[in-house]
Amino acid sequence: MRHAEGSCLIRCGDTHVLCSASLEERVPPFLRNSGQGWVTAEYGMLPRATHTRGRREAAAGKQSGRTQEIQRLIGRALRAGVDRQALGERQITVDCDVIQADGGTRCASITGGWVALRLAVNKLLKSGDLITDPIVDHIAAVSCGIYAGQAVLDLDYAEDSEAGTDSNFVMTGNRTMIEVQASAEGAAFSRGQFEEMFSLAEKGVAELVATQTAAIA
Amino acid sequence: MRHAEGSCLIRCGDTHVLCSASLEERVPPFLRNSGQGWVTAEYGMLPRATHTRGRREAAAGKQSGRTQEIQRLIGRALRAGVDRQALGERQITVDCDVIQADGGTRCASITGGWVALRLAVNKLLKSGDLITDPIVDHIAAVSCGIYAGQAVLDLDYAEDSEAGTDSNFVMTGNRTMIEVQASAEGAAFSRGQFEEMFSLAEKGVAELVATQTAAIA
Amino acid sequence: MRHAEGSCLIRCGDTHVLCSASLEERVPPFLRNSGQGWVTAEYGMLPRATHTRGRREAAAGKQSGRTQEIQRLIGRALRAGVDRQALGERQITVDCDVIQADGGTRCASITGGWVALRLAVNKLLKSGDLITDPIVDHIAAVSCGIYAGQAVLDLDYAEDSEAGTDSNFVMTGNRTMIEVQASAEGAAFSRGQFEEMFSLAEKGVAELVATQTAAIA
Amino acid sequence: MRHAEGSCLIRCGDTHVLCSASLEERVPPFLRNSGQGWVTAEYGMLPRATHTRGRREAAAGKQSGRTQEIQRLIGRALRAGVDRQALGERQITVDCDVIQADGGTRCASITGGWVALRLAVNKLLKSGDLITDPIVDHIAAVSCGIYAGQAVLDLDYAEDSEAGTDSNFVMTGNRTMIEVQASAEGAAFSRGQFEEMFSLAEKGVAELVATQTAAIA
Amino acid sequence: MRHAEGSCLIRCGDTHVLCSASLEERVPPFLRNSGQGWVTAEYGMLPRATHTRGRREAAAGKQSGRTQEIQRLIGRALRAGVDRQALGERQITVDCDVIQADGGTRCASITGGWVALRLAVNKLLKSGDLITDPIVDHIAAVSCGIYAGQAVLDLDYAEDSEAGTDSNFVMTGNRTMIEVQASAEGAAFSRGQFEEMFSLAEKGVAELVATQTAAIA
Amino acid sequence: MRHAEGSCLIRCGDTHVLCSASLEERVPPFLRNSGQGWVTAEYGMLPRATHTRGRREAAAGKQSGRTQEIQRLIGRALRAGVDRQALGERQITVDCDVIQADGGTRCASITGGWVALRLAVNKLLKSGDLITDPIVDHIAAVSCGIYAGQAVLDLDYAEDSEAGTDSNFVMTGNRTMIEVQASAEGAAFSRGQFEEMFSLAEKGVAELVATQTAAIA
Repeated sequence: MRHAEGSCLIRCGDTHVLCSASLEERVPPFLRNSGQGWVTAEYGMLPRATHTRGRREAAAGKQSGRTQEIQRLIGRALRAGVDRQALGERQITVDCDVIQADGGTRCASITGGWVALRLAVNKLLKSGDLITDPIVDHIAAVSCGIYAGQAVLDLDYAEDSEAGTDSNFVMTGNRTMIEVQASAEGAAFSRGQFEEMFSLAEKGVAELVATQTAAIA
Repeated sequence: MRHAEGSCLIRCGDTHVLCSASLEERVPPFLRNSGQGWVTAEYGMLPRATHTRGRREAAAGKQSGRTQEIQRLIGRALRAGVDRQALGERQITVDCDVIQADGGTRCASITGGWVALRLAVNKLLKSGDLITDPIVDHIAAVSCGIYAGQAVLDLDYAEDSEAGTDSNFVMTGNRTMIEVQASAEGAAFSRGQFEEMFSLAEKGVAELVATQTAAIA
Repeated sequence: MRHAEGSCLIRCGDTHVLCSASLEERVPPFLRNSGQGWVTAEYGMLPRATHTRGRREAAAGKQSGRTQEIQRLIGRALRAGVDRQALGERQITVDCDVIQADGGTRCASITGGWVALRLAVNKLLKSGDLITDPIVDHIAAVSCGIYAGQAVLDLDYAEDSEAGTDSNFVMTGNRTMIEVQASAEGAAFSRGQFEEMFSLAEKGVAELVATQTAAIA
Repeated sequence: MRHAEGSCLIRCGDTHVLCSASLEERVPPFLRNSGQGWVTAEYGMLPRATHTRGRREAAAGKQSGRTQEIQRLIGRALRAGVDRQALGERQITVDCDVIQADGGTRCASITGGWVALRLAVNKLLKSGDLITDPIVDHIAAVSCGIYAGQAVLDLDYAEDSEAGTDSNFVMTGNRTMIEVQASAEGAAFSRGQFEEMFSLAEKGVAELVATQTAAIA
Repeated sequence: MRHAEGSCLIRCGDTHVLCSASLEERVPPFLRNSGQGWVTAEYGMLPRATHTRGRREAAAGKQSGRTQEIQRLIGRALRAGVDRQALGERQITVDCDVIQADGGTRCASITGGWVALRLAVNKLLKSGDLITDPIVDHIAAVSCGIYAGQAVLDLDYAEDSEAGTDSNFVMTGNRTMIEVQASAEGAAFSRGQFEEMFSLAEKGVAELVATQTAAIA
Repeated sequence: MRHAEGSCLIRCGDTHVLCSASLEERVPPFLRNSGQGWVTAEYGMLPRATHTRGRREAAAGKQSGRTQEIQRLIGRALRAGVDRQALGERQITVDCDVIQADGGTRCASITGGWVALRLAVNKLLKSGDLITDPIVDHIAAVSCGIYAGQAVLDLDYAEDSEAGTDSNFVMTGNRTMIEVQASAEGAAFSRGQFEEMFSLAEKGVAELVATQTAAIA
């Protein structure tokens, strides 16, 4: 995207998310004169990103509970990888717009959003507006599920619809945890099954971090 | 509550939540003629449940993202303990209104909401409107955190504000998992710390299930 | 309520209203630098306070006309008993939340709201933040109706539904009038019937004022 | 107004209200198949009806509490003069739009709205769509106040702003009461003062009823 | 209108629009300290201005797309005739409220709105608050259509409903163009037909400008 | 776009619009049982499509007046090229989402939207769901302006910001007119200047129609 300070189109199978990072030299009211910056995220989906057309949220007059839940998650996740003191009193807004959806859009948004954020911060470092790098580590996310009794990584829409459990793991580049979410969609899951998903996620995030590194370079 | 089919006032320390279950002989459009029922939840907080008065959501003209996220969680959790085929085409709405807040309101809402739901279903069984009990197991929830480097159970507001991690565990009566959520508020957490919280939560839920059983009796 | 500067649970028959008074050291824009304070009220009803569950106003996205009318009445009534110059530039918000409803919720809100307000002001007097008491008199309210041709005091929901006329009288401790409202629900009423209701209301308020005095002590 | 079934421009001093009655052959859901009709009212004010321009409610995105309170009052008042069984399953909506305001707009709306309603019903009687007249009596309203210690009729804006008490009386043609509202704006008022206003209002309504009769003829 | 700085009731056949100009000594945020003024417009329609009652926009909770489109057009048109530097940092809001509609309400609003604006500015010139006249020329508008294959001026509602094309021309007093809009409602139109409408519009505007001059005098 | 019945990414310089056509086997209420179909459009812009980030309309809670005006134009334009009787009782919604903006987004949306619509209809013809082609002609649109005194075609953002006049021409494949809009942004324009823009637009549309034909093939 020509205008954004940083941007990235992430494709995970048929899930395509366009991520952009926009820099503003102001912070939310609660941070004014605090010397700290802010990173926030917004999430949207084109009406025909999905199998059947969904209602445009702007026309509906509000963001759904699901949208708000997702963008709060993306914002929390990206902030966890930033030293807000080092960022200084500026705000970076990461917009994640799903162009095409096939499962796992929130994880793709976090992983791609981090790349957009990284590129925007690189620009600030290059221009000398920032001396110390405020980004402390990679942030990446994967989804897992229990499909046909088995823990599997990164379900597509068809698998996801039938999966008994849906989970998301957000981690840093050195595999500490930022956010862990698992939800039984059908049958409850055992602690053992949860641990299997956890281990798969650790491997998945390692691959994503490598891909992020390649994308930045 | 005199009018509700089932109700419960749950107190966890200084957190007090009034839960009521309301029965309606109709279901949402997507379930009509499906033979299945629905359980849903709504969450609210009195403006002065907290240290400083919060804005009344009805006056603000919308429910916050946080409120929607919580009531979606409560609804998912309670549905996980119900056989919706056995419930038949009726809806039970569980309202959880926080009278006083001191941390852990979503977990208290789930645990108390289940008691209200159980009482409402008991009424249907007693009146003969239901023959088979649609409730398959208890549902209860606890929060944990990493406080001063240590995994602890059920943080109050003061601890919660300083905790490095906040987690919620929703489980059934026989300790299978419905929902697991952990979020780093400050520093990222290790897999080991997560496992400590998980074990604490299993013990906490066992106590809550015993308390639920006593409350019903 | 542990957090509120003043609070009160008023029960009139099966009508239960939880009233809290919250103090803020700021006033609405139109009073800034005027040296005067403000007292305002908000009113709400738990969804299952009534026989059948009502829609949650926060979920509906707005307060009904009835709610707004009632909270404007409560605010006007309570302000009438306060010397706003003596209160100084601070605002007290009185929240009246109906936990259970059986007729007369607006009158119970005014009567109980005044107790919460009185307690909050007492705190300010005790702490020395206020020297002169800004509360000039009690404010209390009763409803009356014409039921089966007869003027009666304080109708419950069943009577209210059949009553030909519904009236509310808000008075001070020494029985001067703050607000008088009477509305024909079925047949019009005569001036004579109105006067009968008025006289009953004067007696009813006298009792409520005595109860308020006892509650404060 | 050329299109309305009945209409009336009422001028009370510098208060001008344009009232129209619109007939629809349908009723609100709660009256379907009841054989009864409905009369309802909506109230609005042109932005520059007042000394300084007020915000357009359509642009603000909602009707103020004051507007809703007034239109609920107008509707209740007009319904009190109608036999809804005789009206049959049709709805008449009375729109009252204040073109210019100088105090007493709600009373002018009721008095003028009744004329519009009467004319619309006359049309139905003339066309044979109605055989029995559903209008059982005139409905008219006046405002009174306590101004400089004295009960006075029909205050203009300047008097109203300084008046200690504001009251509205809605009556039928034979002087029975539909709605009585009195509100202390400054000092509380005594029962004696209230009775003085009441007597003045009875005279005022008698004059308005005569004017209505002349307007219809 | 007694309170407005300028006002005008324009009648074009059965289309009646009440226009008022309100002066405020402040400008929108984007013009603060720019030395320039602003002219803006709002448009509304009484619910029963039309054949069948339309929904009140204030009750619906928003202005329709059509209303917004019209009021943006009126504002642009009127601003085109004003030297905003000469106006100085003040805002004039022109409200156009349709009392009765029979086609061409947006054009009537522009033509009448200009008269209200002219009168308000005259007041400022007379009082000495303005020395230089900021109004540089008349602004007037007419609608045309292709009706039964023929270009015609100023269609009424019945013609408009059947017209194949609807166009609006906004011009200055010396016939330069401010806004040209033509829209095929049924069949597409040829460039030749468009030119015919254009020539008719030039004549129509000449007449309106003469009428404006007479109205001001 | 994988899921849409028809889709197209149109790039006019740095303006990129993603257009999709979604088919639904239902029509709006006013067309039920009429045998006719409907074509409608929605328009949106990614927040960072522009130089500085714009507010997300879904977050703002409503579509701006500009958005509504544009999507109404796109819908009207596309419907003008469709025989709605031949389409039958089905609806096609064309979503136009601006990925990157540099002037002329509404014209690009119409031109690209037509391609998406054409592809969706082709699918219906191929599957046999439609026998007669309901598309009667191409629809394409260009913008023109008066820049530095000269009529020019298809201004980019920088030119557009300085242009004295902005115009849009929507035409069919055989150059009859669907919509003509010209608006003076600074100085008024003469009829002669308008005719120059008109002639340029006729040439521009001819090129776009050729490009559409190539894109479909």
